[in-house]
Parts: sequence; C-alpha cells; structure tokens
Amino acid sequence: MNYRMIGNILGWLLIFESIFLAVPLITAVIFWEPEFFVFLGTAAFCLGAGVLITRKKPANTTLYSREGFVIVALSWIVLSLFGSLPYFISGVIPSFVDSLFEAASGFTTMGATVFPEVESLPKSILMWRSFTHWIGGMGVLVFIMAFLPLSGGQNMHIMKAESPGPSVSKLVPHVRTTALLLYSIYLGLTLAEFIALLICGMDPFEAINTAVSTAGTGGFGVRNDSMGGYSPAIQIVVTVFMLMFGINFNTYFFLGKFKLREAFTTEVIVFLIIVASSIAIIAVNISGIYADTGESVRHSAFTVAAVISTTGFSTEDFNLWPELSRSIIVMLMFVGSCAGSTGGGIKVSRFLILFKGIKKELDILVHPKQVKKIKIDGRMIEHDVVRSVNVYMVCYVLVFAISMLVLSFDNYDLITNFTAVAAAINNVGPGLELAGPASNYSVFSEPTKIILIFDMLAGRLELFPMLLLFSPKTWRK
Amino acid sequence: MNYRMIGNILGWLLIFESIFLAVPLITAVIFWEPEFFVFLGTAAFCLGAGVLITRKKPANTTLYSREGFVIVALSWIVLSLFGSLPYFISGVIPSFVDSLFEAASGFTTMGATVFPEVESLPKSILMWRSFTHWIGGMGVLVFIMAFLPLSGGQNMHIMKAESPGPSVSKLVPHVRTTALLLYSIYLGLTLAEFIALLICGMDPFEAINTAVSTAGTGGFGVRNDSMGGYSPAIQIVVTVFMLMFGINFNTYFFLGKFKLREAFTTEVIVFLIIVASSIAIIAVNISGIYADTGESVRHSAFTVAAVISTTGFSTEDFNLWPELSRSIIVMLMFVGSCAGSTGGGIKVSRFLILFKGIKKELDILVHPKQVKKIKIDGRMIEHDVVRSVNVYMVCYVLVFAISMLVLSFDNYDLITNFTAVAAAINNVGPGLELAGPASNYSVFSEPTKIILIFDMLAGRLELFPMLLLFSPKTWRK
Repeated sequence: MNYRMIGNILGWLLIFESIFLAVPLITAVIFWEPEFFVFLGTAAFCLGAGVLITRKKPANTTLYSREGFVIVALSWIVLSLFGSLPYFISGVIPSFVDSLFEAASGFTTMGATVFPEVESLPKSILMWRSFTHWIGGMGVLVFIMAFLPLSGGQNMHIMKAESPGPSVSKLVPHVRTTALLLYSIYLGLTLAEFIALLICGMDPFEAINTAVSTAGTGGFGVRNDSMGGYSPAIQIVVTVFMLMFGINFNTYFFLGKFKLREAFTTEVIVFLIIVASSIAIIAVNISGIYADTGESVRHSAFTVAAVISTTGFSTEDFNLWPELSRSIIVMLMFVGSCAGSTGGGIKVSRFLILFKGIKKELDILVHPKQVKKIKIDGRMIEHDVVRSVNVYMVCYVLVFAISMLVLSFDNYDLITNFTAVAAAINNVGPGLELAGPASNYSVFSEPTKIILIFDMLAGRLELFPMLLLFSPKTWRK
Repeated sequence: MNYRMIGNILGWLLIFESIFLAVPLITAVIFWEPEFFVFLGTAAFCLGAGVLITRKKPANTTLYSREGFVIVALSWIVLSLFGSLPYFISGVIPSFVDSLFEAASGFTTMGATVFPEVESLPKSILMWRSFTHWIGGMGVLVFIMAFLPLSGGQNMHIMKAESPGPSVSKLVPHVRTTALLLYSIYLGLTLAEFIALLICGMDPFEAINTAVSTAGTGGFGVRNDSMGGYSPAIQIVVTVFMLMFGINFNTYFFLGKFKLREAFTTEVIVFLIIVASSIAIIAVNISGIYADTGESVRHSAFTVAAVISTTGFSTEDFNLWPELSRSIIVMLMFVGSCAGSTGGGIKVSRFLILFKGIKKELDILVHPKQVKKIKIDGRMIEHDVVRSVNVYMVCYVLVFAISMLVLSFDNYDLITNFTAVAAAINNVGPGLELAGPASNYSVFSEPTKIILIFDMLAGRLELFPMLLLFSPKTWRK
C-alpha cells in the first residue's frame, strides 16, 4: 500500500476543499454574515493541512487498483469530516454527529437534513449545503483529476471507483479530457437551469441554490416546504432538470454531435419508459386528492423525477398518498438513475445486466452446453462485469439488512427503518413515515445516524470502496 | 421436449396423490364424517386420470435438465390443483382460488390459511391440510422416485430441482437409496414427535396433525390460536422439533454413524448460532410483556424456531411485540433453515456462499491477479454454484419486487405487503400486520392470492423451475 501517495492525494483534496469553501465565503460577504469567519477559518485550516501534507512529494507515485479504492473511500470521509466543520463551529448544528450527517448527506447528494426548518439559517450556510451537492454530484476526485496532472493511466482506477454505474467509458482517449468534458456538460446544464429559474421569476439566491442542488441530484432546499411553495412553472423546470441530471451525460455529448443512436442507449430508453409509466400510474392513483388532472400530473411528475433521479425535492408530502403510489415511490428509490449521471440508486444499466443475467442462467438450465455472453446495445458485457454486478447486488442486500437491524434498535416502525436505509443507500433523501418529506432525520439516535452516514457513502461510492476499508487484506502488505 | 415422459410422470403423480388421499379418507371413516365421499370421489378421480395417462408407456424415457425442471414445476401445480378439490367440493371453501391457495399453502409448507377459524372444520379436512405439509415438506417427486424405478441417473435432475438448498449430495451412491434413507429419517423424526406430544398429554388426533405439520415445517394447526393454548411442555416439544426439521437431514445420518465432524457442518453451526442469539435478543426485548424470564424465553424460542424453520406456528401474536423483535423476526424469515431440511427461506448455506463470494470479490479488487475458489467445510465450491447462487439472489429480489408491486394494488400498508410476500416466498406462513399470526389471508384480493400462490411455489422450488415455465426457450424445440 502506497501510503505516501494516498496521503498526497488526500492533501490535494483538502486544498481543493478550501477552494470550494470560497463559495459560501463570498456568500457571507455579500449578505454581510458573521459566518464569514467560520468559513474563512475552515478554509484556512483545510488549506494549511493540505499544503503541509502535500509539501513532501512521494518518491513512488504508482497506484494500484486497491489504492484507487482506498483513496476514493478515504477522500469522501475526509471531505465530509472537514465539510462538517462550518455547521459545527458556527453552532447551527450543536452535535458533531449531526454536523457530519448534514455534510455527508450533502456530498453524497442524499439531501436528507437534520434541520427541523431551514429558512432561519444564514444564507452562507444554506449556500454551503447546496454547494456540497454540486461538488459531490459529479465526483470530487474526477474534478481534481481534471486539474491535477497524475501520472499515466492510474487515474482511471480512481475514476472507475468514483463514477456511478457499472461501466465507465472514456468519451475521448484521455481520462483528463473526458473529465473536463463531463464537467463542462455539468456546468452548462447547471447554468441553463439557473437561467430558466430566473426567467420563471425565482429570486437569484434561491435559483442558484436550487440549480446546484438539482445538478448534483441532491435535494437540500432553502425553503421549509422544499419546492411546494413555488409556482407551477418553477416546479416544471425543476422536474425537467431533475430528469436531465438523472440521464447518462454521454447522451448530451452524443446529442451535441448529432449521433442520436449513441445518445439514446437502451438504458436511457428504459429509464424514460419507467419514468413515463410511473407518472401515469401515480397521477391516476392520486387524482382524487387534487383539483384537476393537470395538478395530479404535475405533482406525480415532480415526485417521480425527484425520486428516480434520487434528488429528493418534494412539492407534496407523498407520505400521505395512497399505498400504490407509496409502493411505486419506494421502488423508484431503488431503481435510481442512469449510469454516468449524478444520480444514485442501483442504476437502470445494472438492472439491465441483472435481467439479462437471469435470462442467461435460465438458458443455461435449458441448454447446459450453450454459454453465450450478454449483449447490451450490441456490445458484449464481460463475465467479470456480470459477476461484479451480481456480487454488488448481493452486497447491497446484505448492507441493507445489517443497517435495518441496527436501525431497529431505535424502536421505530419498520417502514421508517426500511425507507430511511433505502433513502440513504440510494442517496434519495426522504423516505416514508418518520423519514418522510415533511419530517427530518434529527429524530434518529446517534448510532442510527452513523449507520446512515456509512450507507450514504457506501451507496454513493457503489459499495466496494467502503467495504474494502473493512477487509484485512486491503491493509496487508 | 419429451412431452410423453413428462405426461407419464405427472400421471404417476396423480396415482400417488390418490394414495395420499387415503389418509383423510380413513380419518373421515374414523370420525364418521360425510366428507368421506368427497375424498373418495377426489381419490377416484386422481386414480382414474393417473391410470389413463400412464397406460401408454413413452417410447423414449430420456430426460434432460430442462425436462427435470418442467416436471418439477408442473408436478407441484398439478398436485396443488387436485389437492384443492376436497376443499372446494366439500364447500368448506366456497372460492376456487381460495381452495387453491389453501392447497398450495399446504404442499409448499407455507402454512398460511384463508380460514378465519379452523376448530369447526371437519376432522378429515384438518387431517388433509396437515398431511399436505408432510407430503410437500420432503418433496413429492423424491418420494415417488423412492418407489418408482426411473431409468439411470435421470432422477438426479429431478431430485436436484426439487430439493431445497444449493447443494444436493448423495449420502449413498444410489439416488433411490438416498431418497429412501432421507424418508426414513423423516418418518422416524415425525413418529418421535408424535410420541413426545402424546406423552405431554396431547390428544392423539391433535398430536398426529401437529407432528406432520411440524415435520414439513408447514404450520397449519387444528386450533384457532395455533399453539398458544397448549401446555408449556407441548410448546417446548414443538420448539425442539421445529428446529430439528430445520437442520440438514444429513446431520442425523452422520450422527447415526457417530461422525460428529460430518454431522456438524459450518451451516448447521451458523444456523444454531443465529437461533441462539435471536432467542436471547428477543427474550430481553419482550421481557417487559411477560410475567417472568422463563415465559419470555419460551415464547421467544418458540417464535424464533417457528420463523427460522419457516414452520410458522405461533404461541403469541408477535405482531404486537416491540419493533426490534419484529425486525429480527422479519429477517429470520429470509434466513430460513439449512439446505437439505424441510424448511424454506434463502437457506443458511446460501448465505455462507454469498458472504464468501463478497469476500472473494473484494479480494479480487485488492489483488486482481489472484483468483481463488471459495471453500466451505474444506470443500471447493465450483464457480457454477457461486454464479447460480448469486443469480438466485438477484431473481429472488426481482420476484419479490414484482410481487410487492402487484400486492400494492390492494392498497394495504407496506408492512402487510412486504411481510406477506416474504411469508409466501420463504414458505413461513404468517407475516406482520394484516398478514400477522392473529390474522388470515382471506382479506387479500384474488390477483394477490394468485401472486402469493406463485411466490409459494417459486419459493418452495427455489425459483428456477417456476421461472423456466415463462421462458420461451424452455418450450422451443
């Protein structure tokens, strides 16, 4: 294990975190808030620590697969630990575990909060909360790699470990250029949403918060009723952008080159079919609650987009909807978005591979001698990928079950526990009952919050990096 | 596809079913019940149909893997269809779907009932209900194979498809002898429980019903309060036997040969550890509800044994217990018993393979070049088995999710839907809330009952045989 090199990258991470902290810092200046000193202090602390650590260059810069995973896992833990300091030092969150929960919930883009209400919070704190979504959505190490020249093909290990979905393909030959390209699309879409929200009459501060929160598919809002109080026009804009950020970014790359066939992969098409059919079923199911069809469809579409993209905004308290809608919402939490988007969940492409894997297994039972590889969009899926996706799914179920067991010690109802874990591991945000959209996560005990923090991180990093931290072999020479 | 041979075996199945019907027939004679004619008619019908079908011997008796699966799936459907006739014809269940539910719940040893109360039912009907557990517990085709000479090693396909758990090992070189041996153990243990219950003062009719129902890890009882009204001594006897029928029968074979090491496999030891720790946690958790520690431990032990063995008897309404206990009970439903027992669930050995599979996947991430095979009890587990268990788990989750979706149209709460599906697919019987031990399954709609019947059968036959019925490749030439 190349500890020197791991330390070096973590040091760079802290330097970048201090740069990120400039955003709430500037916000504090604009709104003349005393939290300025909190952000200045935190940024200085991060910068100082980072510079100190990176001063000594490691002699050996070679990174193997396991170092890639360890770096990713530790980076996100360090990011959350330092990112929680503004909440804790400013005193807006008195408990450290709660501060860490809020920070991890931000970076992982879960978007569940411990604040009972947010409208009284300083604007700079709100900005930091939303901005953590934007940082975490696309992956912070991918961002660093776009700027920091790492030697050779080693950053591919890191990109693979940090990017959502079972397959990472390079759009262009160089990893660094790919990272820059993806970040340009990300920034462009965020700006587009910001402008669209301004046009619809949203206040600029709220618009920038909403835009970065949507972009990362996070879900932290600046109002107590999330998106409920905004005009239908604003709600529709947010609906569209939540879905857009849930789609594989490659789609936009290929659309820009007018390559429709490459843009609309099976995954994207299946994603859109799931979205459309869920909106239709829920709109019919909740039609009795709302005045007209338009309203039912709007709330249904917003909720489906919010849940499947794992953003977690809400216009209505879907916890109070009929059971059929609630069940569909819970299932959408698990489906999640497309690979290569900023969204969480199990991902549509993984389900495609799982379904084809089952079909293949059944074929093997019928004709034991014929073994065919799985194909998606005409491309062979390697056995390794199929096996890894299967094991991922099994890990997922086991992490889920163990988390449920820990949560049950809080003695809340099973639906609360089940959906809280689902919301955390899929990075959605709200669940049902006590974890519902009208509620907040401050009700849970500290052990529960720590497990949920683990689940958020494990979910965001697709399980293996976090699990590897607990394997003795990772640390053995 | 060798349709002739499939038909032939289904014909033999009906002949055996007519023989099984002699048990309730004799009961009807003893208690002088008019249901005698119902059972006589059904038996004659089965016998007639069976003889007619088997009259013409198929020229080609070759069976391949897929025929094995199809035979197993169709056999259990046919068995349930014909087995439901006594309920429907006698009029004790007016709806055919309900009759089929009761029959399938019997044969698959789920043990969930549509009867709001059972004490007013004719004794011959009660006997048939309990006896279907005994038939289904060990596997009816395994039974037929023990008597019917099938050519060559082909019956291994059938035995593999019907026996619970990922690995079927022959205790002795011949499949037929193995089947006979296992049935001897099964019969011996059933008799032992019957005698133990008599000694504890149970009425002979109730004792025989309880013994066969425990043996199949079914759960149909002859009293409205399941086992709640019996003496502590009887409850303890049932607790011990539920656990015994949840352990791999190979254990008893090797114990009989004083081979302790072969008897106590890792699976059996892990099973016993899970049982002991669950009993301890639940006993502490419910200690406030009961008069003394003895009572808490007794109810905890009974419930844990009933759920993990997937028998589903109850002494207390565990739906009313605290959330921690409820959560553990739900988890035990999924764990299930050991492979090679009569119990259901995912099986401890499958979890062992899954855990080792995750460990291996993590090792591969750390050292991509080193690939080692998984070992359990010193025996290598083939890649095929590992892959199949992983795919099984994925199938399980998907069948579960689709079932949940259908159930949610009934508009009951999520816990009812979740635990009803869990109780069906794991063949446990009771779940929580509306599916709880104090409730019955008559509240559900017909589509829900049909899905639950599918889940019971799919769960009992370990998914693949039932799923193969829906694969076009199975039926293609």
